[in-house]
Amino acid sequence: MSVQVGVIMGSKSDWETMSHACEVLEELGLSYEKKVVSAHRTPDLMFEYAESAYERGIKVIIAGAGGAAHLPGMVASKTVVPVIGVPVQTKALNGLDSLLSIVQMPGGIPVATVAIGKAGAINAGLLAAQMIGSFDPEIAKRVTERRDRIRTEVLESSDTL
Amino acid sequence: MSVQVGVIMGSKSDWETMSHACEVLEELGLSYEKKVVSAHRTPDLMFEYAESAYERGIKVIIAGAGGAAHLPGMVASKTVVPVIGVPVQTKALNGLDSLLSIVQMPGGIPVATVAIGKAGAINAGLLAAQMIGSFDPEIAKRVTERRDRIRTEVLESSDTL
Amino acid sequence: MSVQVGVIMGSKSDWETMSHACEVLEELGLSYEKKVVSAHRTPDLMFEYAESAYERGIKVIIAGAGGAAHLPGMVASKTVVPVIGVPVQTKALNGLDSLLSIVQMPGGIPVATVAIGKAGAINAGLLAAQMIGSFDPEIAKRVTERRDRIRTEVLESSDTL
Amino acid sequence: MSVQVGVIMGSKSDWETMSHACEVLEELGLSYEKKVVSAHRTPDLMFEYAESAYERGIKVIIAGAGGAAHLPGMVASKTVVPVIGVPVQTKALNGLDSLLSIVQMPGGIPVATVAIGKAGAINAGLLAAQMIGSFDPEIAKRVTERRDRIRTEVLESSDTL
Amino acid sequence: MSVQVGVIMGSKSDWETMSHACEVLEELGLSYEKKVVSAHRTPDLMFEYAESAYERGIKVIIAGAGGAAHLPGMVASKTVVPVIGVPVQTKALNGLDSLLSIVQMPGGIPVATVAIGKAGAINAGLLAAQMIGSFDPEIAKRVTERRDRIRTEVLESSDTL
Amino acid sequence: MSVQVGVIMGSKSDWETMSHACEVLEELGLSYEKKVVSAHRTPDLMFEYAESAYERGIKVIIAGAGGAAHLPGMVASKTVVPVIGVPVQTKALNGLDSLLSIVQMPGGIPVATVAIGKAGAINAGLLAAQMIGSFDPEIAKRVTERRDRIRTEVLESSDTL
Amino acid sequence: MSVQVGVIMGSKSDWETMSHACEVLEELGLSYEKKVVSAHRTPDLMFEYAESAYERGIKVIIAGAGGAAHLPGMVASKTVVPVIGVPVQTKALNGLDSLLSIVQMPGGIPVATVAIGKAGAINAGLLAAQMIGSFDPEIAKRVTERRDRIRTEVLESSDTL
Amino acid sequence: MSVQVGVIMGSKSDWETMSHACEVLEELGLSYEKKVVSAHRTPDLMFEYAESAYERGIKVIIAGAGGAAHLPGMVASKTVVPVIGVPVQTKALNGLDSLLSIVQMPGGIPVATVAIGKAGAINAGLLAAQMIGSFDPEIAKRVTERRDRIRTEVLESSDTL
Repeated sequence: MSVQVGVIMGSKSDWETMSHACEVLEELGLSYEKKVVSAHRTPDLMFEYAESAYERGIKVIIAGAGGAAHLPGMVASKTVVPVIGVPVQTKALNGLDSLLSIVQMPGGIPVATVAIGKAGAINAGLLAAQMIGSFDPEIAKRVTERRDRIRTEVLESSDTL
Repeated sequence: MSVQVGVIMGSKSDWETMSHACEVLEELGLSYEKKVVSAHRTPDLMFEYAESAYERGIKVIIAGAGGAAHLPGMVASKTVVPVIGVPVQTKALNGLDSLLSIVQMPGGIPVATVAIGKAGAINAGLLAAQMIGSFDPEIAKRVTERRDRIRTEVLESSDTL
Repeated sequence: MSVQVGVIMGSKSDWETMSHACEVLEELGLSYEKKVVSAHRTPDLMFEYAESAYERGIKVIIAGAGGAAHLPGMVASKTVVPVIGVPVQTKALNGLDSLLSIVQMPGGIPVATVAIGKAGAINAGLLAAQMIGSFDPEIAKRVTERRDRIRTEVLESSDTL
Repeated sequence: MSVQVGVIMGSKSDWETMSHACEVLEELGLSYEKKVVSAHRTPDLMFEYAESAYERGIKVIIAGAGGAAHLPGMVASKTVVPVIGVPVQTKALNGLDSLLSIVQMPGGIPVATVAIGKAGAINAGLLAAQMIGSFDPEIAKRVTERRDRIRTEVLESSDTL
Repeated sequence: MSVQVGVIMGSKSDWETMSHACEVLEELGLSYEKKVVSAHRTPDLMFEYAESAYERGIKVIIAGAGGAAHLPGMVASKTVVPVIGVPVQTKALNGLDSLLSIVQMPGGIPVATVAIGKAGAINAGLLAAQMIGSFDPEIAKRVTERRDRIRTEVLESSDTL
Repeated sequence: MSVQVGVIMGSKSDWETMSHACEVLEELGLSYEKKVVSAHRTPDLMFEYAESAYERGIKVIIAGAGGAAHLPGMVASKTVVPVIGVPVQTKALNGLDSLLSIVQMPGGIPVATVAIGKAGAINAGLLAAQMIGSFDPEIAKRVTERRDRIRTEVLESSDTL
Repeated sequence: MSVQVGVIMGSKSDWETMSHACEVLEELGLSYEKKVVSAHRTPDLMFEYAESAYERGIKVIIAGAGGAAHLPGMVASKTVVPVIGVPVQTKALNGLDSLLSIVQMPGGIPVATVAIGKAGAINAGLLAAQMIGSFDPEIAKRVTERRDRIRTEVLESSDTL
Repeated sequence: MSVQVGVIMGSKSDWETMSHACEVLEELGLSYEKKVVSAHRTPDLMFEYAESAYERGIKVIIAGAGGAAHLPGMVASKTVVPVIGVPVQTKALNGLDSLLSIVQMPGGIPVATVAIGKAGAINAGLLAAQMIGSFDPEIAKRVTERRDRIRTEVLESSDTL
């Protein structure tokens, strides 16, 4: 079976954030691959990765980057596989630069943007699962079960205030 | 055949923006429904809509809202169908409030956020098509063809500078 | 006697902030209850809580949340009990996202928003007391006495510069 | 019967915004008074107004101001009547200055802040009604009826998309 | 001889910042007094302070405050003595709220605003000296000498890179 | 008698804003001169202007500029005459760039910053008058009278709501 | 002789801004070419353009784009010819998104960023000329002469206030 | 041979940032000088430095500064040598003030602005090299080799995730 989700990031230092996406994918039993692909330092690799994704059977790409974060949008411009963009938190502007660089795509090439940092990475994994879950009831069921488990945790946490 | 994409918006005044999403869906031959569903003024309708979406066979929900834009996130909390959030431009803060209210979801419930305003609405339609296209080659092909057509337009526009 | 103030928060991690609201309520002798109610992870509980608040005799609800903070506004959409929203400080955007998600409500459903973080939580407790104090002179008197005490502290602090 | 709500604003030019608060108060049958009270140009009047409000039986004060908007917070410092602050939209910074000047009150003196501009003014009127409604079931009923009417309008608007 | 400069601050916690203003005043041989005067917690003291300042011979007031920083503007509204406002850095919004609350005064009542935090406090002391120096050549001379000394320090620092 | 206030601006297009400062100076009977002095396009003129200001008897300099607004700070670096900076509103960033470029001066060289645009220009004129008024009771009296007149206007405006 | 400056832009609608760069290049007698090259809609053309620029003898590339503006940074990643990025003003966020997407490049691939909009485009032309002028005294002389002419205009404009 | 690149900074405390520019210049074999030149504390030195730069054969100036960062723009106003501005990160506003003060130059005098902080300083060194590399193939070759080396590092880092 081919890999369902491709997880890429602009730099090895983004792994601290992006590992949360991979954890969710593993938890939900989705097959994935992970790779450092830099828009600015390995542009040709980025294009090759994007160009071959659809044919390789990848259903969703998750791309994390920080600062002038061009990776998600540029990958999106080279494939029709849906791309989820994770804005990595930055030192000076706290990820506001990453967010705007990813979300404000011009009409024609969308990037599905999630929150800045760890919460965004977790949600990128869940969003990928939900996209696949629309066509694979088993995956949808696992997302529902995860939500049920977390709901119970929230309800129980209330008693410990 | 069931409706593939549900397009909802918080107010009738959002239609000026959200109609661009519907135009793209029509252009690409996706079936959709459109509806005003307000998080704050029709909260029960919102929950009913979200709760029934998966069973009704909807593959993607596109939700547009402005200001303290709670519609996309709240719908997302009640369904495992992936939700695309379109931040509608606002008068005072130009949609920055809409954007942050939609994109900064806590870990657990993702919203696939696109750009503020018209470009975001167009891209919401395209993103929905790409999500479906990962499982329906015919739709993926139409997205590719649309890109080819637009590329030609861009290339030709260069001669008219 | 029924509970006068309901204090809810989106996550147990908000307790560090929201406990300051509870301390003020205790200091002023107002009865209150506290609960974790998550807009996104326990949406049904949130609606039930809001729907029953008025009949249970609750006079004010204080709701704290961070990021795409939908709890105060969504609770407000389901009850006519006035809702005070406390924007919890966030890691990436320092609570600016929380603030805008809470305060920028569309016309029709108000949320009484206070400052980001601890100062806001303290003021939420005081604001609840003042709302009740408009109809209960004893509570108003206690707020006045608290202010008198703090004024004296400020005046004395000047001598220690 | 004494006036229930005091509506004040920093300048006559704020009336365009603040009139929306008064319309809501009239619609819901609340007695109110309206006045220009400038924090910077009539500071003594402001203090007199605030000092006498509680004894005059006013239950809520609505204060609108723009820019370095000190009126709501300064009135709040001189009365235990709850103060709702309406950030008026400004030319250069679109009301972000008004919002932060009103909402970021230090612990001790709360201002119940609503959205920037017209939506905020409408909500100020509704919030005042809800505060009173917690102690006056007739007013709470009118707020509920207004919501019912608006819900119907939203539901019907959907058919005209 | 009367005190030339009045240094006030909204809270004892602002002293860490405002002490830098006092150090400069001392260094330049200007007489000053320092006091905690809170706009929100001691509003009457604030008005009394402002009202008597001109008659007491004070030439400049330096007022530091954070968050919804109303002290400089409110003092300015009650005296024709020029007021220098120092925006104290805040936890959530880093002093952007303090800055906008102080600088965006409406036409009619100016506040001479300086930078956020320590640099601003130093400059408040220097600005006060320069205002007085326009009418007192001895003070102007001391400001010039201070600049000369610092210029030398800068020039020498270059050799240590 | 020498000129009391020097009004300079970075470009002729700033006159629309800066004329409001001159109107106030005229109204209060202060002598002034006005000049286009550009930090970037006439840097030598700027230095000459600043260097000679003190000896020419100028008591206050008002400097308006927009964007990367260096004029107020650079003039301040070359004279001990106090400099009031007026951030002119800009097209893209609405004067936030002008404000930060003027107000965030490093410790050592202060600029007395006022609000963005017209309100700031009016207040620059008033602030100059107040600085002089601390040493010239006649000017202080005129500022007081102007305030009295405006207070009356505000009080009367209330009746026309 | 080969073209000295390549002027590219992401969309024909950017021409209104970018034409100002071309006017300056013409005025200073630099040879240039202009082209629509879209990062997202013609990514392959963008790479080809960048890859061949150095060999074609181009000395500077000027690239204008708006929103999630990836063109300047991506071109820069594929050539060692220096790239000047012009942030085009956008509707919702006024070009702040364009600015951050262009300027916040990670270490390794620089973009020489200029101001948002028309002023930035003019300066892009001048900056290109200055880069070339460091190696071609004739071009440097023309930049100096242009400055002299503008200085005279500024000086004369002062008399017309 | 004359110095090719002049590296200046507004304060010795900027050296922590600016040293990264010097490291890159050294790595690429470009001759440079480094100096503390403060716009506000040593304005005359700044003008002398700028005025003599072209004749001394300097090809590029790199200027780093923080806060109301006037050094790059003022140096640019006094020389036709291209100036690269590095916004140094600041305590309160994280370098957003530095960035806007440097990049938003009015039409006529450009500053080639790079990212805030360390990444910007590295890129300033590389940009200087690329500007020179357009006329010196040996330098261009070294930039290309540096990129090749870094590309390899990125590719290898992927295996260590």
